[in-house]
Amino acid sequence: MTTAPDVAARLQAALGERVDTSDAARHAARADKSGHAASGLPIAVVHARSVEDVQATLRIATETRTPVVTRGAGTGLAGGANAGAGEIALSVRGMDRILEVRPDDLLAVVEPGILNADLNAALAEHGLWWAPDPASRAISTVGGNIATGAGGLLCAKYGVVRDAVLGVDLVLADGRLLQLGHRTVKGVTGLDLTSLVIGSEGTLGVVVGATLKLRRVVPGVVCTVAATFPDVRAAAAASAAVTASGVQPSIMELMDAASLRAVHDLLSLDAPSPGAAQLTIQTDGPAADVEADAIAATLRAVGGTVAVTHDRAEGERLLAIRRSMHPAMERLGTTLIEDVSVPRSALPAMFDEIARVEREHGIVIPTVAHAGDGNLHPNFIFEGEVGEDGTVEVPPAIWDAADDLFRSALRLGGTLTGEHGIGILKRRWLADELGDDQWELQRRITQVFDPLGILNPGKVFSA
Amino acid sequence: MTTAPDVAARLQAALGERVDTSDAARHAARADKSGHAASGLPIAVVHARSVEDVQATLRIATETRTPVVTRGAGTGLAGGANAGAGEIALSVRGMDRILEVRPDDLLAVVEPGILNADLNAALAEHGLWWAPDPASRAISTVGGNIATGAGGLLCAKYGVVRDAVLGVDLVLADGRLLQLGHRTVKGVTGLDLTSLVIGSEGTLGVVVGATLKLRRVVPGVVCTVAATFPDVRAAAAASAAVTASGVQPSIMELMDAASLRAVHDLLSLDAPSPGAAQLTIQTDGPAADVEADAIAATLRAVGGTVAVTHDRAEGERLLAIRRSMHPAMERLGTTLIEDVSVPRSALPAMFDEIARVEREHGIVIPTVAHAGDGNLHPNFIFEGEVGEDGTVEVPPAIWDAADDLFRSALRLGGTLTGEHGIGILKRRWLADELGDDQWELQRRITQVFDPLGILNPGKVFSA
Repeated sequence: MTTAPDVAARLQAALGERVDTSDAARHAARADKSGHAASGLPIAVVHARSVEDVQATLRIATETRTPVVTRGAGTGLAGGANAGAGEIALSVRGMDRILEVRPDDLLAVVEPGILNADLNAALAEHGLWWAPDPASRAISTVGGNIATGAGGLLCAKYGVVRDAVLGVDLVLADGRLLQLGHRTVKGVTGLDLTSLVIGSEGTLGVVVGATLKLRRVVPGVVCTVAATFPDVRAAAAASAAVTASGVQPSIMELMDAASLRAVHDLLSLDAPSPGAAQLTIQTDGPAADVEADAIAATLRAVGGTVAVTHDRAEGERLLAIRRSMHPAMERLGTTLIEDVSVPRSALPAMFDEIARVEREHGIVIPTVAHAGDGNLHPNFIFEGEVGEDGTVEVPPAIWDAADDLFRSALRLGGTLTGEHGIGILKRRWLADELGDDQWELQRRITQVFDPLGILNPGKVFSA
Repeated sequence: MTTAPDVAARLQAALGERVDTSDAARHAARADKSGHAASGLPIAVVHARSVEDVQATLRIATETRTPVVTRGAGTGLAGGANAGAGEIALSVRGMDRILEVRPDDLLAVVEPGILNADLNAALAEHGLWWAPDPASRAISTVGGNIATGAGGLLCAKYGVVRDAVLGVDLVLADGRLLQLGHRTVKGVTGLDLTSLVIGSEGTLGVVVGATLKLRRVVPGVVCTVAATFPDVRAAAAASAAVTASGVQPSIMELMDAASLRAVHDLLSLDAPSPGAAQLTIQTDGPAADVEADAIAATLRAVGGTVAVTHDRAEGERLLAIRRSMHPAMERLGTTLIEDVSVPRSALPAMFDEIARVEREHGIVIPTVAHAGDGNLHPNFIFEGEVGEDGTVEVPPAIWDAADDLFRSALRLGGTLTGEHGIGILKRRWLADELGDDQWELQRRITQVFDPLGILNPGKVFSA
């Protein structure tokens, strides 16, 4: 049996100053933006700067049977990258180079630690764009976006991470490096392991590089439509009417009454009408103005009070209300941010279910939704006991309410998680969605990649 | 040891008239459109009409350790669905119902045996469209499109099969039914087994249903641009110039001189200039006319002789030249249709390689390309000895030339197969592209789904 000090010593012998055993670094690696923290402190944090650093770490992990938790910027919302006692935290945040940009092939090759926003700032100089835009894009890494299969606001029109990655370089648990995928638009040679790795949350290997599929920056103006409705069900039905009209917005965000009120408080705006919910919609591309006017007409026809602007700055001001959701929630208490997704037609029914859960469990669940794709973020508010390290435990009563809400989403044909992942916080519901047979099959696939079970154990597949 | 007659008897006892042991049916199941045929005759052809039929077949196959080869319409070009001695041919062609169309959720649920074109005819009544458009769409099934991860002409703008499937129902080798994927736009619960099944060529299970992601029929006109160039390299460079200009055509097809000449012969058109190659480009959507004019200007600037039409019928007449490629080739001799794909910027270099292979091997390789996405179909022409059943063996010298061409594509950052699959005809090159480690990992993943190795053995992964 290798002890933790032995493992730390072997890492230091191989990787020198890349290995950080300070309390501060180990404490930071325990938690992510979910507020959840792992038990105990990891053995060390390895700050990898190269593929070889990652390979060396994994060889030592394999030899000593030590679990490895890969981390990017630690912005996850499901505890998937939290490292605890007996584990190595492997940070790839420092591997943040852009290795290649090919405007002619509309691709870029990057290291995993680059921030999404930093990548897009660099691509903009070429008139290019990597479309995935999680709300965290200013602070989250491309590798983390890949590990979780991240989404964002623009997905209904421009796709999710899975639509925007051609290949990944993956270091296996034993340190071998595989190059998965291709640099071509089409490619069907063998099994699609690239898609398998996307969203696998660190259970199959360590992504040390990615070939990304780019788009050109969309030309033309961006128009914004803001519409209020007497209640959230009417707003949800209105978003369905927009989808049904055949016009494709780039963004279509819904805020329920509690969210809207909290943001208005935060921003010192006039209070919205009691019960009022809001849709904020953007259109882009060559027909943006025509499409915005068509959407406005659709929304008015279903009872909305509608404002349209063809001015980009004014549009950003309207969208800022939506973007202020998280700080507004933080003022209400401690939050568990959930992430169910339902077929778009089920959005009104899902809001009915949220109202039912609020009533039956006696709690408040302000909810925003990416209404264009049926992805909801219910925020469960509670009085959390903040631990000495700033982390919180979600009370059992809140999990009971979340359980009720998850089951409603599944009944409506939906899914537990649209874009945040399973991590540690949702693993107990995974088999409810997959079924026991598929759960077992998926677990066995992880064992093909990781026969010793050292890659992020206890996450996703553990009960 | 269970004998073939035993297996046939057990199938007949369970499935009655669904089991066809006639020579005609068994002969037909040996071959596909590649011209390749399996050795010997399969035990029987099971014409499944339901999920239960498929499950019953696979339970008997598992109990008797009998290989199963799943077939749709038999239009494959890699021998992937050819069934031979000792095997059960399981046809799902008769499972061709559309179970659900949801315009509000932009999805349809279908059985695997429906023809792509039949599905799209039915969807058109709802103003909807399943985008994958392999050239075989009038005769190939949705299940076959999924099994091969099919592409087509519209992929650069509208994506491939992998971009257009939300979920699949899969019967495993032991007869269990799994529901993979979801009905939502976003969903990251567990591993993405739907993507893993797409393109897996019958090695992981039998697809018995699919939830398809639909688009609305694109409004507006379709414009067509036809341009000739003095040689194929100039045409390839011109296609790259179009991609670089940022205008996204819906279709961009390239025909080299030999292809163009053969089609002009077939259609009794005036002979093209010696050496001349052609680009045929279509634009669609609200800005189709503006985009067509911009593309025409780009092509003229790089030396093209350009014709533009905003008339749909005239455009179809121009595109008919491209669509006549296969019958034109059939008049030249027997053909091995290949399917390499390279990064778009490498298209001119790949045509140089094809010319080199023609010279060095003393053969003619008329080539068409989906130039918008870098996918080439070189047609190796040879004098084939047609067997008694109409199938042909590709001569070793032709395979040597193909080998040379495959290696060129890989050197240019390309892939063995853009859209046809590995099947039986390309399995010996698979490890060259994947590397031995990835080849072995992929093979082990198939064993998780199919521990007895009865699903399409000898295809894709066998050496």
